[in-house]
Amino acid sequence: MRRTDVPDVVIRRLPLYLRCLTYMAERGQSVVSSQELGAWVGVSSAQIRKDLSYFGEFGRQGLGYEVTYLRDQLRTILQADKRWSIVLVGAGALGHALVNYRAFESWNYDLSAVLDNDPEKVGQPIGDLRVRPMEDLVASVHETGAKIAILAVPAEAAQSVAEQLVAAGIRAILNYAPMNLVLPAEIHVSYIDPIASLQSTTFYL
Amino acid sequence: MRRTDVPDVVIRRLPLYLRCLTYMAERGQSVVSSQELGAWVGVSSAQIRKDLSYFGEFGRQGLGYEVTYLRDQLRTILQADKRWSIVLVGAGALGHALVNYRAFESWNYDLSAVLDNDPEKVGQPIGDLRVRPMEDLVASVHETGAKIAILAVPAEAAQSVAEQLVAAGIRAILNYAPMNLVLPAEIHVSYIDPIASLQSTTFYL
Repeated sequence: MRRTDVPDVVIRRLPLYLRCLTYMAERGQSVVSSQELGAWVGVSSAQIRKDLSYFGEFGRQGLGYEVTYLRDQLRTILQADKRWSIVLVGAGALGHALVNYRAFESWNYDLSAVLDNDPEKVGQPIGDLRVRPMEDLVASVHETGAKIAILAVPAEAAQSVAEQLVAAGIRAILNYAPMNLVLPAEIHVSYIDPIASLQSTTFYL
Repeated sequence: MRRTDVPDVVIRRLPLYLRCLTYMAERGQSVVSSQELGAWVGVSSAQIRKDLSYFGEFGRQGLGYEVTYLRDQLRTILQADKRWSIVLVGAGALGHALVNYRAFESWNYDLSAVLDNDPEKVGQPIGDLRVRPMEDLVASVHETGAKIAILAVPAEAAQSVAEQLVAAGIRAILNYAPMNLVLPAEIHVSYIDPIASLQSTTFYL
C-alpha cells in the first residue's frame, strides 16, 4: 500500500478515530466495536472497517478492536508518535491563542519559533518564546528542524509568506489565513477557516 | 434538487469557490474559466463543473463563468447573503481571538453574545461585549435570535455545553473543542481542530 493510494478523506478521519481511542484508553476501556467507534465519530461501522482495511487487519470478527493496540497502530500510521517542531508565522491574537493552546504539547507538537514582520511585535514575549523577525525565517527552520509551519497572517500576506516558508524548507503548512495557497504539489496544505465552515453550515439551516 | 441530495463534500468546497470569486470580483475580474477557478482552489475543472451542476447552469460553453453572477448565486445557495447571529461559549484565549477576528463581521456573522462559566471571566469586557454567565444562555439565544453557536471550551466540557446549546434552540455548532459531539442528527456540527489537521498532514511527510 503506497501512501498515495489511500483517499485523502480517509486520512482526514483517522485522527478522529485516534482521538476517540485515546479517550477510551484513558478511561480504561479495553475493547471497542466498529459500531461504537462509528457512533462516536459519526460514520457507519462499515465505513470504519473499510477505512482501517487500507492499513491491515486490526480487529477480529465478533470481537471488535483492542483499544490500545489500534490506538498505537494509528499513531504510527499518522506518524503521531514522533515529535514535530513547528514554526508559527503571525504573532497577532490568533498567534497568541495558538501558543497558549496546551493540546499541541500533549500531542507531540513543539511550537519552537514564532515570527512576525511587525517591528512592534518583534522581541516581545509570546508563551516561553520571543517573537523573531521574518529575516530569521531560514535560520529558525534550520535551528528547529521544523518541516511544518502554521500560517496565522492576514489573507493578503498568506501567499507571499507561504512561498518564503517553502523556500526555507517547510513541507507542510497549516493555513489559518482565509486564502487558498498556490504551491508546488508536494507541499501539503491544510486549511482552517471558520468562515468557510460557517458557510457550509448555513447551507443546511 | 433537495438540499440533502448534494454530497457534503461539495458543500464544503462551495465556500472556497465563493472566497475566490469574491477576491476576483474585488480586483475587477469579470469572467473566470473552470480551469482558472480550479487551479485556485486545487481541484480539477471537471470537478468545478460537476459541483456547480447540482445547482443549475452557471456558465456558457467556451465562455466561462461571469464572476459577480456566480459569486451572488453561491452567496444565495450558502445563505451567506443573510446576516447570522452567533453565540460564543468560552472566553479564554481562543474566545478572545475569535471576538477580535474581523472576518466574521465582513462576512455577515455577528458575534452577539459571549458566555463563560468562570466567575472571574463573567462581567469582563471582550471586544464590544461583556462576558455573560452560562445561566444567561437561553436568554442570550432568544435575545439575539442566534441559530449558530461557536464552542470554544475545553474538551471535557464540550458535550455538556453542546447539549445545553441544543436545548436552548441552537441548530448549528462550530466546535473548536477537540472532542466529537454526539447530538441529534438534525444539528449540524463542524469541527475545527488543528491537532486533527496536523495529524492528517504528518501522514504524508
